[in-house]
Amino acid sequence: MKVIKYRDAKAVKEVPGVTKRDVITADDGAPNFCMRVFEIEPASSSPSHSHPFEHEVFVISGRGLVLGEAGATQIEEGSVIFVAPNEHHCFVNNGNQTLRFVCLIPIVK
Amino acid sequence: MKVIKYRDAKAVKEVPGVTKRDVITADDGAPNFCMRVFEIEPASSSPSHSHPFEHEVFVISGRGLVLGEAGATQIEEGSVIFVAPNEHHCFVNNGNQTLRFVCLIPIVK
Repeated sequence: MKVIKYRDAKAVKEVPGVTKRDVITADDGAPNFCMRVFEIEPASSSPSHSHPFEHEVFVISGRGLVLGEAGATQIEEGSVIFVAPNEHHCFVNNGNQTLRFVCLIPIVK
Repeated sequence: MKVIKYRDAKAVKEVPGVTKRDVITADDGAPNFCMRVFEIEPASSSPSHSHPFEHEVFVISGRGLVLGEAGATQIEEGSVIFVAPNEHHCFVNNGNQTLRFVCLIPIVK
């Protein structure tokens, strides 16, 4: 068992205004999927992109938009987002506090 | 893409004091793993058990203990827990507010 506080994990700046922490990875023995925690500052967003794997996201705090191929949806604490494989998407902080969410992806074997 | 608020998902009472919501499942098209949200009331706990698949957990709010084979660890908002396959474990709410966490498991194919 591994137990940590996510804030103690190494923070990496992905793009300006977006920080990522890898909190559960294959190095921990995770056999199937890994957990990352993202923090997006106000007026910032993750890049719009797509990839052949899915995202499973839970919003911890803050407010924002998730943009998918069908348009934009408001998200906030308690929002759950499933991004299907190959779907274009990005996350935008349109609030005035940090947007924080957990995002899980499969481990490529 | 699926976007919901977790509180809108159907709540199932797993054992007294423990509620589970399946928020992302294979029915949504998730190919590899699924997301559940648990709420444990004060002085309640999940059953102590083990299974051949892992857990990846993020604590949303509240305080509690996770009991593993090496003992008990305090958890709270922002705690991340990796429970390895086949490890005995349970989650105990020893605080005075609802303990809420996200818990992901692989989809058995």
